[in-house]
Amino acid sequence: MRKEMFGHEISVLRNTFRRLLRRNAHINLRKIIQKTHPADLAVLFRYFTDLEQKTLFDLMIENEHTAEFLTELDEAIIITILENEEPKRIAALFQNLGSNDQAEILNLFPEERTNSILVLLQKEEKQEVEEIMGYPEDSAGSIMSVDVFTLNVNTIAKDAIKSLQEQKEAEMVFYLYVTDDNGRLVGVVSLRELVTTHPEKTLGHIMTKNVASVQPETDQEEVAKIVSHYNYLAVPVINLEEHLLGIVTIDAVVDVIREEATEDFLQMAGVGKDREILLKSPWENARARLPWLFASWVGGISAVAIIGIFENMLQTTIALTAFIPVIIGMGGNIGTQSSTIIVRGLATGRVDVGNNLKIILKEIQVGLILGVLYGILLGCFAAIKFMDATPMLGFVVALSILSSMIISSFIGSLMPLLFRRLNIDPAIATGPVVTTSIDIIGVTLYFLIAAALIPVQ
Amino acid sequence: MRKEMFGHEISVLRNTFRRLLRRNAHINLRKIIQKTHPADLAVLFRYFTDLEQKTLFDLMIENEHTAEFLTELDEAIIITILENEEPKRIAALFQNLGSNDQAEILNLFPEERTNSILVLLQKEEKQEVEEIMGYPEDSAGSIMSVDVFTLNVNTIAKDAIKSLQEQKEAEMVFYLYVTDDNGRLVGVVSLRELVTTHPEKTLGHIMTKNVASVQPETDQEEVAKIVSHYNYLAVPVINLEEHLLGIVTIDAVVDVIREEATEDFLQMAGVGKDREILLKSPWENARARLPWLFASWVGGISAVAIIGIFENMLQTTIALTAFIPVIIGMGGNIGTQSSTIIVRGLATGRVDVGNNLKIILKEIQVGLILGVLYGILLGCFAAIKFMDATPMLGFVVALSILSSMIISSFIGSLMPLLFRRLNIDPAIATGPVVTTSIDIIGVTLYFLIAAALIPVQ
Repeated sequence: MRKEMFGHEISVLRNTFRRLLRRNAHINLRKIIQKTHPADLAVLFRYFTDLEQKTLFDLMIENEHTAEFLTELDEAIIITILENEEPKRIAALFQNLGSNDQAEILNLFPEERTNSILVLLQKEEKQEVEEIMGYPEDSAGSIMSVDVFTLNVNTIAKDAIKSLQEQKEAEMVFYLYVTDDNGRLVGVVSLRELVTTHPEKTLGHIMTKNVASVQPETDQEEVAKIVSHYNYLAVPVINLEEHLLGIVTIDAVVDVIREEATEDFLQMAGVGKDREILLKSPWENARARLPWLFASWVGGISAVAIIGIFENMLQTTIALTAFIPVIIGMGGNIGTQSSTIIVRGLATGRVDVGNNLKIILKEIQVGLILGVLYGILLGCFAAIKFMDATPMLGFVVALSILSSMIISSFIGSLMPLLFRRLNIDPAIATGPVVTTSIDIIGVTLYFLIAAALIPVQ
Repeated sequence: MRKEMFGHEISVLRNTFRRLLRRNAHINLRKIIQKTHPADLAVLFRYFTDLEQKTLFDLMIENEHTAEFLTELDEAIIITILENEEPKRIAALFQNLGSNDQAEILNLFPEERTNSILVLLQKEEKQEVEEIMGYPEDSAGSIMSVDVFTLNVNTIAKDAIKSLQEQKEAEMVFYLYVTDDNGRLVGVVSLRELVTTHPEKTLGHIMTKNVASVQPETDQEEVAKIVSHYNYLAVPVINLEEHLLGIVTIDAVVDVIREEATEDFLQMAGVGKDREILLKSPWENARARLPWLFASWVGGISAVAIIGIFENMLQTTIALTAFIPVIIGMGGNIGTQSSTIIVRGLATGRVDVGNNLKIILKEIQVGLILGVLYGILLGCFAAIKFMDATPMLGFVVALSILSSMIISSFIGSLMPLLFRRLNIDPAIATGPVVTTSIDIIGVTLYFLIAAALIPVQ
């Protein structure tokens, strides 16, 4: 199958830009910037130094092309190039941006700087932006487009088409939203229905009633679930008075789905949730990852303490040491399997509140099946290899693998479900905190079983 | 923020269905089936037993509603309910399904059964379905809709609107595709452009040329990248003669993005890549996860062998044992962090072929920073706790943590990049195979350092 053609085009462009940058060919750079798709430009910027980014951005004109480029750009790079930019130029750039995109950029700045830009906006625009900035992060309100095309329920199709032709601002018109005399959202008409209907019919006649909608406070993950589940192209955002505040379009939803998946991946590995971690310096990387590794450290010290308790036993049966890595490894891996399946099931809606117990029981069964299998495999190996040391070693190892795999699959499936109920991101459940706990439990069990079964010499 | 409202509605519906099923209230069930959104029905089916699923499906009518329900259903459930269904009924159901959906369902059946259904289809439909079944799995060809609305480049806007009004089949008309006299795709017109243009203008005048397109063999992940990167609503699929074969719409892309993320999550945890694993029995679960745990088992046996070599040293310095878990844990966790960052970067296009060396070097730096920090922390702890055992222990532990963290971040970042070059799914790189290798390397280094630094007593 064809792959990488997309990556190939980017890498050709990158080399062209680099060559022109090296030659300081500003006129050619200006030309190629305008000819490059804004989304491609945004990707290219990841490969340039801060200085190169600044040079290129200075060559850009305050037009729609540059505005679209800004909406596609990584936050870390937006900060770099706009940090020292004149508020005037930023305000000029904003004229081609939707209010939600303006709000998103302003949220990256310190308050003082935000205010210095806000005062330069037109009154109406300023109001809209401030309203959006007031919505919680990652809510429907923060990702909605406010330029929506609405018409009164009594408009006839012919006139609706005429208004549509005059309308410029509303982006991505998929649906026409229909409101009653009090401004309440009462229905929706698809562009196709409008075009294919009798020109004298009112929108009230052709619209679909019972429009699914969300509130501005609805979490963006929930919005994404609704849009993708029902195959919508956009979902309206309404307030408690049922007034239409904006719409969340499917292209915003695509971004949300990608972003939420990335955050889950990073959380699961214990890297925090900064999606742009690849753009950050080694120091910033280390700082983000340090606290999660601290769990390993605490776990490690606990293991030292636990093993210390059994020092006498170890002295007489040194062979016990050799199986510590495999007990930890098998438990850790099956635990990660269980929690990953469930974390992903929660994210995609396959796991919900109704079937938790069944899922945990199933995971325990899986732990039992695999524990018996690998317990026997490893127990036999231990018994044969260390036949002269102690005849019980094989049995101890087998029993430890079995119990550690059952407990690990139990904890691995329980934790994400528990975290969800406590409103903690379940993705954390597969991270170092939980895996380290599983390690400790595994080692403790192993030594307890050994102490119980191996006779003191 | 509001959450879970979607889950709440599903759980109310589920209880209603259960009640009616228990009462065998077939007439009411028929009514509620027709009133429930097909996508919701598909989710509800996950909670019913095989028998309940069959009962409900028998009550369904061969209409569009049921067809849409089938497109939303999990593959495992499709197999359950259609396994023993009459080919005639399946053919009747197919009449409301797009060719790509028909192909997808037929791909789930054994060849003989597929053929018994294919012969019941109309000749043209049969041809189309067979063509789609010929495309590789997970390619643009296998997910495209073939009912596309195309018009000749010389059509005038007025006539185009008229044809649109007569058109019924083409689903999700966002764009009109424009072909020349040889049937080659030459441009695209948005519905809005069509409506807002002078009625006598030809499509050739108003269309956008240079349409981005993909081939039927293009990997669906690549298609998803293109559609989401450029914010398209659909991308045309053309063959080498530039004839339009179909379009991949954004709602198919949303599914692809979700599916690919789920597969990556599962691969990374070593659970295979069956997205429907939650629907499978404990035995099937265990079978999918067994081979990946085998890596832990092999790793465990290797660790036994390695530790065996150093048995004499352990006998004299038993305290060494206590630090095995933390050496393994810290190395494993930082390695998972590195590989997760890179696997996700590859999936989202943030990591590409051009910057591999830089990324690996950065990860090694992060390993160095965190290794020094945690090495010192753990080394001091070891030195103080086991002061009487051997004065070198602290130094051995510190050095081992440091080297294991550097090597783990190196391997963790190298493996996914290497796998990608070898056309192996990079997500496997964070699974048990690589983490187990990191474990072994960590333990080996630890004992080698100990052997070099701790004097034989």
